[in-house]
Amino acid sequence: MARGGIARLLATLLFFLLLATPLADGASEAETGLAQGASEAAAPDAGADTQQQHLLPRPLVIELPSSRAEDEDEPGADAVPPDVRCASWRLAAEANNLAPWRAVPPECAPHVRDYVTGVAYRSDLDLVARESAAYARAAAPLGADGRDAWVFDVDETLLSNLPYYAEHGYGAELFDHHKFDEWVERGEAAAIPSSLKLYNEVRELGFKTFLLTGRSEGHRGVTVDNLNKQGFHDWEKLVLRAAGDRKKTATVYKSEKRKEMEQEGYRILGNSGDQWSDLLGSSMGARSFKLPNPMYYIP
Amino acid sequence: MARGGIARLLATLLFFLLLATPLADGASEAETGLAQGASEAAAPDAGADTQQQHLLPRPLVIELPSSRAEDEDEPGADAVPPDVRCASWRLAAEANNLAPWRAVPPECAPHVRDYVTGVAYRSDLDLVARESAAYARAAAPLGADGRDAWVFDVDETLLSNLPYYAEHGYGAELFDHHKFDEWVERGEAAAIPSSLKLYNEVRELGFKTFLLTGRSEGHRGVTVDNLNKQGFHDWEKLVLRAAGDRKKTATVYKSEKRKEMEQEGYRILGNSGDQWSDLLGSSMGARSFKLPNPMYYIP
Repeated sequence: MARGGIARLLATLLFFLLLATPLADGASEAETGLAQGASEAAAPDAGADTQQQHLLPRPLVIELPSSRAEDEDEPGADAVPPDVRCASWRLAAEANNLAPWRAVPPECAPHVRDYVTGVAYRSDLDLVARESAAYARAAAPLGADGRDAWVFDVDETLLSNLPYYAEHGYGAELFDHHKFDEWVERGEAAAIPSSLKLYNEVRELGFKTFLLTGRSEGHRGVTVDNLNKQGFHDWEKLVLRAAGDRKKTATVYKSEKRKEMEQEGYRILGNSGDQWSDLLGSSMGARSFKLPNPMYYIP
Repeated sequence: MARGGIARLLATLLFFLLLATPLADGASEAETGLAQGASEAAAPDAGADTQQQHLLPRPLVIELPSSRAEDEDEPGADAVPPDVRCASWRLAAEANNLAPWRAVPPECAPHVRDYVTGVAYRSDLDLVARESAAYARAAAPLGADGRDAWVFDVDETLLSNLPYYAEHGYGAELFDHHKFDEWVERGEAAAIPSSLKLYNEVRELGFKTFLLTGRSEGHRGVTVDNLNKQGFHDWEKLVLRAAGDRKKTATVYKSEKRKEMEQEGYRILGNSGDQWSDLLGSSMGARSFKLPNPMYYIP
């Protein structure tokens, strides 16, 4: 009991220490987005998009960094086995060290396939879910006003589209918006088991759950059915991309929606997503959990 | 040329879009720090520290999450091979998914040893350095006022203390402040080759380099000598922890120092560190690079 009191005191002190230096964060975040967008030429697809819009619907999806890195005369780089190099690529993606990328590097396609179909991906998902649950339990007891919230992304966070990506090179092919929409409309995405368990646990702890997805409003019906069929129920709100959100990056769109939650009085204590654009930006909440996903990148 | 123009236009648009939603970032960052400190009881070491202060000098270093996670009745968790589980632990650490931890989980000591002494760690370091250099080159040409800056942490970022950790379980032992100080005072830490190359490259591009370390001011002389001997020269400033910074978390201390740089007119375009506390907080700069380090955690 005394421990908890000291912990809370230290945490409160830390909170105010940090609060004392908040200025320029917003700009820094903005610059982060800018830098990532600007670090590689964003334009190559701008022209192509007008003709093949469904092939690269995501804005500012850019040159592949690792193919560029390979071009360099890195002494000894060839001495590193491909699987190790691809593990480095995957780690860099998970730690948000890569510039925006639009497909898995060809040399890493087998590595990513083996990873997402093997035990490692499941183990990684399980561990993040367990950490999330431990944090959620430590956050209890929640406020009596019922305004403590947990935000979940949907694709590759609650639901898995692995059968779709299995038919499209596990991220080695360019993303095809039309074909993915057809898959979404089948409503057959399976629950990620560790995420379903976490979802139910945070609900039982009293969190309000918000589902914040890049799927479009037109897919509301099929998304609700798919989620329900897979065991996800009783969310506070399912937020989908409206027509007006379509040209925004996911980072901007999701930040705006989280800000609206806060303006409605919700306190975002936890945020789970497989993309850094689910987690960064503004109104980031108290703590984020990055689920693994080496198959695609959404800015 | 036209490509570059469109890229710049898109980047500028994105910049202002992001700028339009900057509020509450500071608070969110503050809350992030708070939540990580508070998610596990911060106090258990507070009492012990008064007696064994040199064993856990870092403030708010807390219960080990993975040993807690293991206690749970996770169905099938035992079916996952230890090396896969430890790779999950390491990935979660790199993606900042873990609550503060104070030592490598015992079951993962062999995994971490093999990782940091093998080709994977070097490969991971190399890839992050290459991504950093590509970003630095894309940021050129720099401002004519000579105020574009790159911040580097020192330990496990520019210099490697691997010989010290080899004698202390590669992070499996509790950190011993006294013994580590003795190692520092020998001045024998080796340059991380990919970091030395990056350091020289950003300097040649015109960046001013700032070295921002948790080492104490009393170690200035030996640190300068060690850095010079290893090929690091001509930094703008080497910032060490003054007596007044000693009780601050690294996140707070480093945020304050970065803010001072900004107040002196520097624009922090890049920030390299092996700890999330090198990179998070306020005045975070335009882009961060997280170097791998599964051996210790500094809040």
